[in-house]
Amino acid sequence: TNLMGLYHVLDYRTMAKELDFISWDCYGRWRGSDASDLDVASYSALQHDVNRSFLHKPFLLMESTPSLVNWHTHNKLKRPGQHTISSLQAIAHGSDSVLYFQWRKSRGANEQFHGAVVDHAGHENTRVFREVAALGERLEKLDEIVGTTTKSRVAILYDWPNRWAIDAAQGFQKDNKKVKETLCQFYNPFWKRGINTDIIGYEDDFSQYELIVAPMIFSIPEQLIKKIEAFVKNGGTILGTYMMGMVNENTLCYLGGFPAGELKEVFGIWNEEIDTLYDDEFNTVEKDGVSYKAIDYCEIIHPQGAKVLATYTSDFYSGEAAATVNTYKKGKAYYIAFRDQGDFHDCLIDEILKECNIRSDFDGALPTGVTAHSRTDGENLFVFLENFSTSKAKTATKYEWHNVETGDPITGEILLGAYQTLILKRTL
Amino acid sequence: TNLMGLYHVLDYRTMAKELDFISWDCYGRWRGSDASDLDVASYSALQHDVNRSFLHKPFLLMESTPSLVNWHTHNKLKRPGQHTISSLQAIAHGSDSVLYFQWRKSRGANEQFHGAVVDHAGHENTRVFREVAALGERLEKLDEIVGTTTKSRVAILYDWPNRWAIDAAQGFQKDNKKVKETLCQFYNPFWKRGINTDIIGYEDDFSQYELIVAPMIFSIPEQLIKKIEAFVKNGGTILGTYMMGMVNENTLCYLGGFPAGELKEVFGIWNEEIDTLYDDEFNTVEKDGVSYKAIDYCEIIHPQGAKVLATYTSDFYSGEAAATVNTYKKGKAYYIAFRDQGDFHDCLIDEILKECNIRSDFDGALPTGVTAHSRTDGENLFVFLENFSTSKAKTATKYEWHNVETGDPITGEILLGAYQTLILKRTL
Amino acid sequence: TNLMGLYHVLDYRTMAKELDFISWDCYGRWRGSDASDLDVASYSALQHDVNRSFLHKPFLLMESTPSLVNWHTHNKLKRPGQHTISSLQAIAHGSDSVLYFQWRKSRGANEQFHGAVVDHAGHENTRVFREVAALGERLEKLDEIVGTTTKSRVAILYDWPNRWAIDAAQGFQKDNKKVKETLCQFYNPFWKRGINTDIIGYEDDFSQYELIVAPMIFSIPEQLIKKIEAFVKNGGTILGTYMMGMVNENTLCYLGGFPAGELKEVFGIWNEEIDTLYDDEFNTVEKDGVSYKAIDYCEIIHPQGAKVLATYTSDFYSGEAAATVNTYKKGKAYYIAFRDQGDFHDCLIDEILKECNIRSDFDGALPTGVTAHSRTDGENLFVFLENFSTSKAKTATKYEWHNVETGDPITGEILLGAYQTLILKRTL
Repeated sequence: TNLMGLYHVLDYRTMAKELDFISWDCYGRWRGSDASDLDVASYSALQHDVNRSFLHKPFLLMESTPSLVNWHTHNKLKRPGQHTISSLQAIAHGSDSVLYFQWRKSRGANEQFHGAVVDHAGHENTRVFREVAALGERLEKLDEIVGTTTKSRVAILYDWPNRWAIDAAQGFQKDNKKVKETLCQFYNPFWKRGINTDIIGYEDDFSQYELIVAPMIFSIPEQLIKKIEAFVKNGGTILGTYMMGMVNENTLCYLGGFPAGELKEVFGIWNEEIDTLYDDEFNTVEKDGVSYKAIDYCEIIHPQGAKVLATYTSDFYSGEAAATVNTYKKGKAYYIAFRDQGDFHDCLIDEILKECNIRSDFDGALPTGVTAHSRTDGENLFVFLENFSTSKAKTATKYEWHNVETGDPITGEILLGAYQTLILKRTL
Repeated sequence: TNLMGLYHVLDYRTMAKELDFISWDCYGRWRGSDASDLDVASYSALQHDVNRSFLHKPFLLMESTPSLVNWHTHNKLKRPGQHTISSLQAIAHGSDSVLYFQWRKSRGANEQFHGAVVDHAGHENTRVFREVAALGERLEKLDEIVGTTTKSRVAILYDWPNRWAIDAAQGFQKDNKKVKETLCQFYNPFWKRGINTDIIGYEDDFSQYELIVAPMIFSIPEQLIKKIEAFVKNGGTILGTYMMGMVNENTLCYLGGFPAGELKEVFGIWNEEIDTLYDDEFNTVEKDGVSYKAIDYCEIIHPQGAKVLATYTSDFYSGEAAATVNTYKKGKAYYIAFRDQGDFHDCLIDEILKECNIRSDFDGALPTGVTAHSRTDGENLFVFLENFSTSKAKTATKYEWHNVETGDPITGEILLGAYQTLILKRTL
Repeated sequence: TNLMGLYHVLDYRTMAKELDFISWDCYGRWRGSDASDLDVASYSALQHDVNRSFLHKPFLLMESTPSLVNWHTHNKLKRPGQHTISSLQAIAHGSDSVLYFQWRKSRGANEQFHGAVVDHAGHENTRVFREVAALGERLEKLDEIVGTTTKSRVAILYDWPNRWAIDAAQGFQKDNKKVKETLCQFYNPFWKRGINTDIIGYEDDFSQYELIVAPMIFSIPEQLIKKIEAFVKNGGTILGTYMMGMVNENTLCYLGGFPAGELKEVFGIWNEEIDTLYDDEFNTVEKDGVSYKAIDYCEIIHPQGAKVLATYTSDFYSGEAAATVNTYKKGKAYYIAFRDQGDFHDCLIDEILKECNIRSDFDGALPTGVTAHSRTDGENLFVFLENFSTSKAKTATKYEWHNVETGDPITGEILLGAYQTLILKRTL
């Protein structure tokens, strides 16, 4: 039952209920340049979080490659260090293993050129074998992390049937709805800020989270409307987006205006129309004097109680609300009515995190490419400080940590080499 | 029996003979920028004219949308005003109705996101409903136009089996012959000059026209050769193009040189070879000191009595004739031997119209985006002056008109807002 | 049994054994610009050589067109002169005929627009007919060349099952291995230097050649390893490339390191890993102070006795060998570990030819676009000096030749018009 990330044709969350433990196969498309590898790192982290969140407990990295795969369009070698950092990333996000496909390259058949610990050469004097052996030595020193868990104050809603509903919907950008890409884009601000994040379904317990992000939650059963209402009423913060609450679980449209039913009061808006843009078009949105591009989708919404955070600046809906926030009972509901290029929601999420006082478990600055994700046994905090960039990076901490692998004390300034992972520990 | 424009797999002209009246579904890809919308307007006008010409009488606009459709790749909203002008354009070209698909958006199934008069919101307080209501009020004032007809001195030949013959022909640009695109390009000069144009088939009566345009009339039965010969002999003017008269109705090549049979005398040329250009290539044609690009197809023709109007200026056929005119008995036959980018035939058609003394039924200048098409009951002339551009426009008239909707007299300078339609009337 | 060049789904070499003589259909995509036509000329020459090498004797050019075909995406006319030079090129490379498809254009069906000697016009007053007639007059003067053969000191290995093995291999650039393109690229340096080249299979006799080029010889039976070893041992020179000797004839990987078995001693290298680059990536290779781009594939090889000729200058294998040469007993084995853009192997082949003292049978300089290929009856040498470019070209010879067609003596400076072919003869 190896799972395969966000493989869209099977509802893994339903399947996961029947499994004793989760295992999955992670094969990232690492290229060796920051421009693309930081996205690969963020996407890998997301998928680890998805797998961990199914049963809310550690999982197994069941398959990975120490070098290349043989089924990408271009089967590039992992650069020195990439295999190590990508393996330790799995541990950082809740894996209790680093396992490989395959031990030894098969002589024939489909996978004869898939990466392996042992190559056709048959001996151990290869770059790849040496890297695997070195990683094995590091893993031996991480025994105390096995079985520890991940505490997240933030959750993102992602639901397989919702993706199917959007993909099957006749309308919008007919053949390119980008549900998965949107999930990745909304996950990234949390990943790069070193904030643990669960990826949850409609039936998960919302009450353990302070912030729930709901990107493109188009298909929404009546019970979920009530659950969101209750979550916000009791002090939770929600961030919704365009296409929210348009159809029920049978893809019948909600009548009476979007978003569905009580969501209109929770968000304090009415969404009258959605404009779909061509690929060569964009609108512009202004927030606090800064301009952002709006692409693909621009909803024309009417605040009904909500405060306007950003407005469109061109086309016939220039001046209309593009993002809003509504105070609903003890909680808050944010709404982004358009698709941005990442910069707008990154900025808004930064504000929301400050408002909610949600921070990384690592107290230092996180330069571009450096992340910090944590696990805990309830008494100790383990932080994986990882530098996914090809440049050195610098940060600092005010806490007294220990290096889990060496036992050395760590405080003050910390230097990280390219692809370096430092595993820190302190008592809670 | 809703027809669908130039839908190429059914010979609508043959089907039309069996119908009591013509009705069709018009769903233009309006985008809100002049760069593409003037092409959309021209193409919609062409299709209205095609439908009107089937039975040479008014038709019904059976389906249209007040906002968006759900089956384009990008389902963009109609901008305010676009629904109104596109609806009135149908009337201008011969429709006696403006009907919608759909009254109310269906809750489920394939068309749940297709535009409608009434949205899922279920009430009338929407932009779209208000625009439909306002148009309805205008339509009530146009009763006297119902049943009036269109008089055209110009016709363009378009034949379904001819398109099939070209598309099926193994040769030329094998998979991209562009018959429909060529029809659109040759229609546009008449549309933008406000000249009523019929789109006719091989069996229509030619004698009621003064100018017949025959773009890419490749498959041509013997009878049509005779009919063209008779039309020109009796004083008609014809404009033919590359690929003319190569095969008969069974797609057997004509022997003895192209164009087929007596067409060689009518046009005064022999077409020896056709050179097909790659997409990144072009030749240049010079006419009266001005240069034009020749793309896709360049025929190497030999004048045999015809006067050379334009010549190629490069490649091994540099200096050879690229366009000709031949005086044949009482008429004239023009031939364009290459595919141009619209500018060349626009210029030549302008000269031909002057030569034939064919003018718009509206006497004023027509700035870019402004058109004027007419209907008549035999006693009164109704002119639809429409501004398809997003800018204001100005024109003037020496006649005394009345505004059909308000009854106000109109003469001298006329100002048109963006997307404005003014419906004028005068006694003939 | 008309063959069709390198048609990849049939192993023509196996089929050829059953044929009394080889005939093939040559339809080059001539465009009329040097930028693409020199590649077309080189590719046509390659295919003529492939066909001649099957039975190592003259073949028939069974089908060709004097003008255009009707099955290319864009069916362009052959420019004046192209039909003549492309026909004589076949003779230069071993054809004893120039035959056409088709004598007369068929009136109907699929090939009605395919070029022919006689057009639908039905008479001889066409450009194409005149060119065919003129060529016929020249061919009449070449009787003494019929039956003469081609002597090549160079051979290139090309094997159909090897191509199938690479194309079917799951790995590398999964869907774009470019075996045929690589063959063309390695053939070109010989073609443009006017050096006769045979294209041979695994079972051909290697001993008659001095240099064997083995591009992408991935699938290699045990016997071929031994044959290559014997060829080099006995003084032959071989040039191998990336992907050499990875699998046997059943596509099972060779164990013990690439290239297979004794090839490691012959080439003096061990190939540890192959890095596949994305289309937007490249590495750089330096040789004698000059930089070359490395694209698609970069192997990380370890010299084990070989001398390093060129090194990578970036990425994690910067400084590692990118090309090597190994002296193995009486012979030499060159290895290129990466895919270049043509310039690198052109330069290396130039050095190898000098080292092997292999020259064109024509002693003069060959400007860009001018080639010289020879046939012989054992007593006389016939050289076809051909100018495929659209510009005039100049060369010179120290030998005393005769023009085969006119009998005129030729020595010293020689001028060639665009598309001109001069057929020279001298006693050996």
